[in-house]
Amino acid sequence: MTPRPATASARSVDEYRDTVAALLAHLFERPDEQAPVPAALGRVLATDVVSPTDLPVFRNSAMDGYAVRAADVAVTPAQLPVAGVIAAGDAGTSALDAGSAMKVMTGAPVPPGADCVIPVEDVQVGADRIVVERGRGRGEFVREAGTDVRTGELVARAGTVLAPRHIAALAAVGLPTVPVLTRLRAVCVTTGDELRPAGSALAPGQIYNSNGIALAAALRADGVEVVEVAHSTDDPARFTAVLRAAVAAADVVFTSGGVSKGDFEVVKDVLAPLGGTFGPVAVQPGGPQGYTVVDGVPVLSFPGNPVSTMVSYAVFARPVVRALGGLPAPETREVTLLTPVRSPAGRRQYLRGLMTENGVEVISGPGSHLIAGMAWADALVDVPAEVTTLPAGSPVRILSL
Amino acid sequence: MTPRPATASARSVDEYRDTVAALLAHLFERPDEQAPVPAALGRVLATDVVSPTDLPVFRNSAMDGYAVRAADVAVTPAQLPVAGVIAAGDAGTSALDAGSAMKVMTGAPVPPGADCVIPVEDVQVGADRIVVERGRGRGEFVREAGTDVRTGELVARAGTVLAPRHIAALAAVGLPTVPVLTRLRAVCVTTGDELRPAGSALAPGQIYNSNGIALAAALRADGVEVVEVAHSTDDPARFTAVLRAAVAAADVVFTSGGVSKGDFEVVKDVLAPLGGTFGPVAVQPGGPQGYTVVDGVPVLSFPGNPVSTMVSYAVFARPVVRALGGLPAPETREVTLLTPVRSPAGRRQYLRGLMTENGVEVISGPGSHLIAGMAWADALVDVPAEVTTLPAGSPVRILSL
Repeated sequence: MTPRPATASARSVDEYRDTVAALLAHLFERPDEQAPVPAALGRVLATDVVSPTDLPVFRNSAMDGYAVRAADVAVTPAQLPVAGVIAAGDAGTSALDAGSAMKVMTGAPVPPGADCVIPVEDVQVGADRIVVERGRGRGEFVREAGTDVRTGELVARAGTVLAPRHIAALAAVGLPTVPVLTRLRAVCVTTGDELRPAGSALAPGQIYNSNGIALAAALRADGVEVVEVAHSTDDPARFTAVLRAAVAAADVVFTSGGVSKGDFEVVKDVLAPLGGTFGPVAVQPGGPQGYTVVDGVPVLSFPGNPVSTMVSYAVFARPVVRALGGLPAPETREVTLLTPVRSPAGRRQYLRGLMTENGVEVISGPGSHLIAGMAWADALVDVPAEVTTLPAGSPVRILSL
Repeated sequence: MTPRPATASARSVDEYRDTVAALLAHLFERPDEQAPVPAALGRVLATDVVSPTDLPVFRNSAMDGYAVRAADVAVTPAQLPVAGVIAAGDAGTSALDAGSAMKVMTGAPVPPGADCVIPVEDVQVGADRIVVERGRGRGEFVREAGTDVRTGELVARAGTVLAPRHIAALAAVGLPTVPVLTRLRAVCVTTGDELRPAGSALAPGQIYNSNGIALAAALRADGVEVVEVAHSTDDPARFTAVLRAAVAAADVVFTSGGVSKGDFEVVKDVLAPLGGTFGPVAVQPGGPQGYTVVDGVPVLSFPGNPVSTMVSYAVFARPVVRALGGLPAPETREVTLLTPVRSPAGRRQYLRGLMTENGVEVISGPGSHLIAGMAWADALVDVPAEVTTLPAGSPVRILSL
């Protein structure tokens, strides 16, 4: 009799999450990049951005009307000759003579000498003169240069996730590009002879290949650029070729499948000899985990069950992936458990949950295959390793999905 | 003397929002489209989606181990001959004889006749037989076909905004594509001789062209496909050409600028003769508004001040744009005003606000040019038309940005 396979003592969830974070820590050093402002929606500012200009750039009219001196219209009706017309885009450098008016369009420069604008509604227009029926005080309907933002003043802070309102401000101050965090580039590699593409007819024993699609969606939702979703059979030579291409293209590679204790574990079989570390984490689902550094690129190997893959990503990789992208940590908080729960001793369990006003309902059992059920879950219920039963009403931590 | 321009009696905000909604209502009838599941993140399901298959597709093993009859391992240790090996992807149709075991990999078919799987950890492995050290009950570590989802069962509901967990489920049931709402196609047209592209040196009287960039960002954040951001000078022939191209490419066209009471209002000058309706809405900022149907395509004309453009979009167009995209209405709720406010009588005012734990702070004055300041605002404070002063502590409605 050969001895049963040695079971490396299982690492804890926190320990393995820290291991993954350390493995990706060098990626915080990757250089920022410049993004064109029109394409920067959702990107994260790498530095504070200050205005290269005063805004308004020049003193201009807030209304279609007539630029005058307030003193000349203090008594109304006041008749004034019209000395000219200034459209938006005109240089508007000739001064206004006392006792006269210049017609100005909204956004046009207010001429030197004028100190207020009379809206067109308050004016009777004659052939060469106007009658102002309501005077205005100094400064009324005049936008002074720099009253919105001054040259050198902060427009948006480092770390801002750029929303439309930020894009509007960055465009208004005339910035063509802004420094943003470079997106993390990832490749997802699925493995398994039994996997078939969506829409195929399945032969007995085959299933659809969903892990690459699902993991890519999760990564994209966290701001990652998924360079490729690749698939390998269980042939080691094939997997080696796919892996080499993946590490050449990515900052980080995710694999799914081929890491547990079967006879045909292509990921473990290829990566362990390259220095990979494979072994159990005290978690359910997602116990078998592995990591390797190949050509300097971290390769995280998740188990192949669809729910295991998604929970592995959410628990072990997502926190550091979001931090690398400058995004806030996944929300975790304590809520009331609405469904009684049993859990294996010694394994931290993540159950699919649905948040309600009163707390969290557990909506599927511990089976790692219940991926369709996972569509209805918006949270993972985090059951500590030492806990074996939790009655309804217990406080539990949840991790938002 | 010519009479002053006739002022059409101003419409209310609610009336004009309804006008815009009616103008776009026919777009609810546009056909759905099929999106490839891997590219469907963030898209909105047009119909309920049911599973085309049982999941699991076939009865399979949850563990790497040995498929046996529970009755054969009721007393342990139990010695059993190993009749074969079933890998994931094998058809696995030959039945298990009583009193024997078959090695099975995770995800591999459990052979007919077997009713549980003994994990490899609980087994001593010999040359042609195993010793089971811990028995298991019927069904343990066996995933029955259809226990996740059955053929015809709902996977995701119509209206679901597809998150990674939905993509995972849709991929797992093998759907190559799903029916989604077709994105609204929009073109943004900015106007004005004074507008210059970002990064240009500005001559006196010129400003940066930001409205197209900002409006496109707002539309994209609401799920719209912005087909083009175009610019026209104030030349009517040029604007007409740009407009014709826009309506040929889009479901809806947004213009900014050229709608107020100046001498050079290219948008109004071109569109009013085509049947456009231009006139004031009792709102600040964003009073001058216009709409036209050109070749069957609605054209919404916003004023050109950057904040006016953004507030016009948020108040008048965004509700129907989001509804057309199947997205929830912009959040509006009552909070406490933290800053005293003055407001002109007869105009509903939208002030830029910053939400805090205690309520909303007003962070800029009513000036429609304060676009840089808008970057710091995450809400619009909605001051009713009849209100002229609001002390701090008043309840106010806010519209989230």
